[in-house]
Amino acid sequence: MSYDFSEMIDRRHTNSVKWDVKDNELPMWVADMDFRTAPAIVDAIKNKADAGIFGYEEVPEAYFEAVQHWYATEHNWAPNTDWMRFVTGVVPAISSAVRRVSHLGDNVLVQAPVYNIFYNSIVNNGRHILANDLHFHDGNYEVDWADLEAKLADPLTTLMILCNPHNPVGKVWQPDELRRLADLALANHVTVFSDEIHGDITDAGHGYYPFASVSDAAANNSITAVSPSKTFNVAALHAATLIIPNKFLRDSVDRGINSEELAEPNAFAIPGTIAAYTQGAEWVHELNATITANKQTLTAFIEKNLPDLHVIKGHATYLVWIDCRDVTHDTQALCDVIRQTTGLFITAGAVYGGDGHDFVRINVACPAERLQDGLNRLAQGIHTFEQK
Amino acid sequence: MSYDFSEMIDRRHTNSVKWDVKDNELPMWVADMDFRTAPAIVDAIKNKADAGIFGYEEVPEAYFEAVQHWYATEHNWAPNTDWMRFVTGVVPAISSAVRRVSHLGDNVLVQAPVYNIFYNSIVNNGRHILANDLHFHDGNYEVDWADLEAKLADPLTTLMILCNPHNPVGKVWQPDELRRLADLALANHVTVFSDEIHGDITDAGHGYYPFASVSDAAANNSITAVSPSKTFNVAALHAATLIIPNKFLRDSVDRGINSEELAEPNAFAIPGTIAAYTQGAEWVHELNATITANKQTLTAFIEKNLPDLHVIKGHATYLVWIDCRDVTHDTQALCDVIRQTTGLFITAGAVYGGDGHDFVRINVACPAERLQDGLNRLAQGIHTFEQK
Ligand SMILES: Cc1ncc(COP(=O)(O)O)c(C=O)c1O
Ligand SMILES: Cc1ncc(COP(=O)(O)O)c(C=O)c1O
Repeated sequence: MSYDFSEMIDRRHTNSVKWDVKDNELPMWVADMDFRTAPAIVDAIKNKADAGIFGYEEVPEAYFEAVQHWYATEHNWAPNTDWMRFVTGVVPAISSAVRRVSHLGDNVLVQAPVYNIFYNSIVNNGRHILANDLHFHDGNYEVDWADLEAKLADPLTTLMILCNPHNPVGKVWQPDELRRLADLALANHVTVFSDEIHGDITDAGHGYYPFASVSDAAANNSITAVSPSKTFNVAALHAATLIIPNKFLRDSVDRGINSEELAEPNAFAIPGTIAAYTQGAEWVHELNATITANKQTLTAFIEKNLPDLHVIKGHATYLVWIDCRDVTHDTQALCDVIRQTTGLFITAGAVYGGDGHDFVRINVACPAERLQDGLNRLAQGIHTFEQK
Repeated sequence: MSYDFSEMIDRRHTNSVKWDVKDNELPMWVADMDFRTAPAIVDAIKNKADAGIFGYEEVPEAYFEAVQHWYATEHNWAPNTDWMRFVTGVVPAISSAVRRVSHLGDNVLVQAPVYNIFYNSIVNNGRHILANDLHFHDGNYEVDWADLEAKLADPLTTLMILCNPHNPVGKVWQPDELRRLADLALANHVTVFSDEIHGDITDAGHGYYPFASVSDAAANNSITAVSPSKTFNVAALHAATLIIPNKFLRDSVDRGINSEELAEPNAFAIPGTIAAYTQGAEWVHELNATITANKQTLTAFIEKNLPDLHVIKGHATYLVWIDCRDVTHDTQALCDVIRQTTGLFITAGAVYGGDGHDFVRINVACPAERLQDGLNRLAQGIHTFEQK
């Protein structure tokens, strides 16, 4: 490895949302990583800082070319740079698209359990959540196609938010699944927003499939959001890109993000993203190897020490989804006990909807030593809960 | 002077909106400065960059204390830190407040000529612009009080956007004017949004007056926006602060900026602003002296060489408003000729509404040497136009 993913960096008192916890607590919840980002990004930011003038910034063609280069080399897909728009974040873009693409009172379709903030974007804008719950069977999540088709066909359903790959279940959607979904959405005039923020974080040999790359039906009826945010641990760089092949949809969404002031980059978003996408590949590959190893460590530990827990096998994201139904159907109570007795802070699954109340989500993007600390606390907390 | 405001920095090809011009052109339009920001800000950004982890960031109490410290020491006003909310920019906050405080189809009151983007925030959100045109008399702008009162009394008027101090006319509103305005607004149930982004840039002895500081009526019925953006030349730091003494108004606006994703800071906004507000005072005082000198240079040059032009005397902002009615009532045509024949790019006043078509706006926040170049081009352009 050329990069060091083992350093135990102290993130307390750095204004980190994740690490705003008590001294004895260990946070493995919010989706950011305890690793330092790729050195090329830090250098690019410092170069920009040295220039010392931070006036109004525009997005150069080199930015879009960097996005294209990354998708071409990492994901076998070279989207047209004309299709792209800069945006300050993926959630801001989702909220804006909800306002722009659907109408007040419409249904927005999601596949639960899913990233909880999707619900906020829907509800805060006066739309209704319509959930096509994923079907859990034999330790695996599948799309419930009949239910999906019925819900897409509801005249009030105008937008679907797809999580590709899927947080929190860690699943990589396959091209045939995405194509089938694209055809159904198009047939029912439902626009698809594909949130691909986790796309770069996959186990070796398990790359993800950009929705718009799978078919014309998918490309022409979708808004894709990508970002270096999760990949490079730069959530607060505030940089993301929308990719919208369809000109009319693009013009409409563009108007939305502009009048909502989400389309202007801060001084560091552009140089940071260009550095990430042009010089960061090796760093990401090593990161992915580290995360895969962490997932294996966690799985082995749980198999050995916590036979009542079942790890869901997913090849994407650094978030692990764990079935706790043999311990409780109320993992919020479980997580409360774990936090109170051991200081380990993980996410109870109910916030993600669907069958989430049976699950917990653990963020393993940390050095192996910290992971081990977390696993020990987890075991202690589960045992305490089971003894009650 | 401890800081250097004379260095001729080349800003071409740096993704600067202002400097995206032809090789022979000289931009003196967009409101950012050609000076490097205060060194303490650059250092704070580089320190944050060195930490290398840019996960989700929260706003610490130290941020609000820095804002308070700045207003207490620079403007004799120590707003409560509880009244404050972080926001990604002043225009984003205005747009959000328009959506939150007024209703579709309502009137939003402004005092023309005024910063043109106010119009976008109003119109893009389906509200109507109602202009209380400033009264121009003897080279000075005054409020037309009878007209203001009538327009505030219109039941459809629910919000007023005040520019304090006033861009583009450079005027510092006095406490008695602000108090009178506050009483009228309160009596008519019109909320005041006071945009104070230019408040720090004033001639020595001519400090500005924060709206919420002038009376209880003003404090309880207003949203104030402040930012280091103009003051320190950090527009792309994406940092501003809303100050809202009234709890109910604050809760409502807070909900708006949160659900529109304008309330989360990027990694550099917090350290940059804290450095500005705690270590930047001397830099600003020297900057202000530089700008005052530039305004004097410009005024003397115009008096001597361009007797048909009349500089409006304003003690705030680095933007100079020049009456050109003795040359033309269509300054857009004038600015086109100036740009085509000399490369000088200044702003034709019509975009600001009111009597703006008789005026041009020139940005003098640049080294004296560059200003001189601009003035020479201005003279050449005016002469060319007059000879036609
Ligand atoms: C699926 C998904 N989308 C979006 C985000 C957040 O995106 P951003 O920080 O760019 O708003 C997250 C963060 O956890 C996520 O998991
Ligand atoms: C009066 C006024 N308000 C706001 C802004 C811009 O604010 P921001 O960049 O924070 O959106 C400007 C910039 O020229 C301005 O003149």
